[in-house]
Amino acid sequence: MTQILVNNSFSVVILQKTNKMALSKNQIKSITSLHLKKHREESGQFIVEGEKITIELLSQQRYKIIGIYALEKWIEKNKALIISANFPYYTCSSNDMERISILKNASEVITILEIQNQKKPIVENKQNLILENIQDPGNLGTIIRTADWFGIENIFCSKDTVELYNPKVIQATMGSFLRVNVYYTDLENIMTEHASIPKYTAVLNGQNAFEISFPDEIFLLIGNEGKGLSTKILSYPNIAVSIPKFGQAESLNAAVATAILLSKLKM
Amino acid sequence: MTQILVNNSFSVVILQKTNKMALSKNQIKSITSLHLKKHREESGQFIVEGEKITIELLSQQRYKIIGIYALEKWIEKNKALIISANFPYYTCSSNDMERISILKNASEVITILEIQNQKKPIVENKQNLILENIQDPGNLGTIIRTADWFGIENIFCSKDTVELYNPKVIQATMGSFLRVNVYYTDLENIMTEHASIPKYTAVLNGQNAFEISFPDEIFLLIGNEGKGLSTKILSYPNIAVSIPKFGQAESLNAAVATAILLSKLKM
Repeated sequence: MTQILVNNSFSVVILQKTNKMALSKNQIKSITSLHLKKHREESGQFIVEGEKITIELLSQQRYKIIGIYALEKWIEKNKALIISANFPYYTCSSNDMERISILKNASEVITILEIQNQKKPIVENKQNLILENIQDPGNLGTIIRTADWFGIENIFCSKDTVELYNPKVIQATMGSFLRVNVYYTDLENIMTEHASIPKYTAVLNGQNAFEISFPDEIFLLIGNEGKGLSTKILSYPNIAVSIPKFGQAESLNAAVATAILLSKLKM
Repeated sequence: MTQILVNNSFSVVILQKTNKMALSKNQIKSITSLHLKKHREESGQFIVEGEKITIELLSQQRYKIIGIYALEKWIEKNKALIISANFPYYTCSSNDMERISILKNASEVITILEIQNQKKPIVENKQNLILENIQDPGNLGTIIRTADWFGIENIFCSKDTVELYNPKVIQATMGSFLRVNVYYTDLENIMTEHASIPKYTAVLNGQNAFEISFPDEIFLLIGNEGKGLSTKILSYPNIAVSIPKFGQAESLNAAVATAILLSKLKM
């Protein structure tokens, strides 16, 4: 008796949540609109693509899942997980997936999530990262991933930094957007609010970062890919540090420079 | 008299080398064909885009310049340099530039260069890099740039590594392809040929790289973005090293991991 009831209730869920037909024009339009910042802001939703990351999404609480769009084979493989949590899902054709994908080659699954309100980070007794005007989505995503590796919990971003929910940023984080607190704010507020916490600024002519012993409570500041940190930010008290150069390249990629400095923080 | 002669000879050069008309269909086709590996291999030419890098190109000897395609304002600004070296150049409309560009927003100048024969690197008494099956052009370009920063002269690449002359690789090097020797070869040959030089392999469960003092003569080996180094390569004698993890990310970006290890080599 119970067995039958369970089966029935499962069937109901399946009927409600599965759509075996192709996606409608409107559904496709509404998903692809999330490729653009304007529509992400309007709808409060963003898009994540890929098998591995979606599995991770199914077991996290941070972002509400609005919908899972996947090939039938992916749905079949992960049905238990999807149904137990009652996630809305839609079975899509490969053609559908290609149309809504953000990648050159569509994955088997795309998930729409709800954008969360920002949570103001607690910075005390931590090594925190500040990014000013990082423009390249791959750089921001890679920095978030690297921060996650080194156990950096908080990243403050200036408001002109590329948006966290840009699909290229999300993809480059390789899932680390689920764990690192990325907070967009006016950086000058941070500089004044936490005046007593030492601020190390990555510049081209500072102290040799390899010879510095970094404290356990700091802000590490990284600037724009081409222009570095602004004079406005550098006008606040700070300790200028540089990665020593042994060859001839004019500069390092911003994500690479951040990674080298974060690794030094942990040595 | 001399003054007039110089002026005349300059005029002749200008007449020969400038084409004030729009590029022909065939010219555009031949330049855009270089966006593809197949045509780069057939023609032995590759494409470089951007104002800053082209200025650097004008004063180097490593790559022969086949042609400079630029907006009139760029040509005017750099005429002295171009004419003194007798470089073939073509004045293009913005429309032309957009059609031949490899970027989303065309630069003011695009240069076609001749692919050089590989030069076998001298590895003794040096810290050398080996890359196996790196697939992302941005990663390879960033690794070359970082190697240049840290004074690493030689990068050996497995033959299945993304091609050096891929425009995305070239762009990401930020000019460092002019200085670092990138050599495609069968990595197993390197392993046997230089058996006595220590080989440090970047893996996920090796010795803590932060606690190692790296010698001045080594190979550092970095593997594919998803799969790491192959069992084939790891079957040769090697010292497995890892970047210690303090947080939860599953892995680091390949260019980031390389950069952190190269920085440690120099500390």
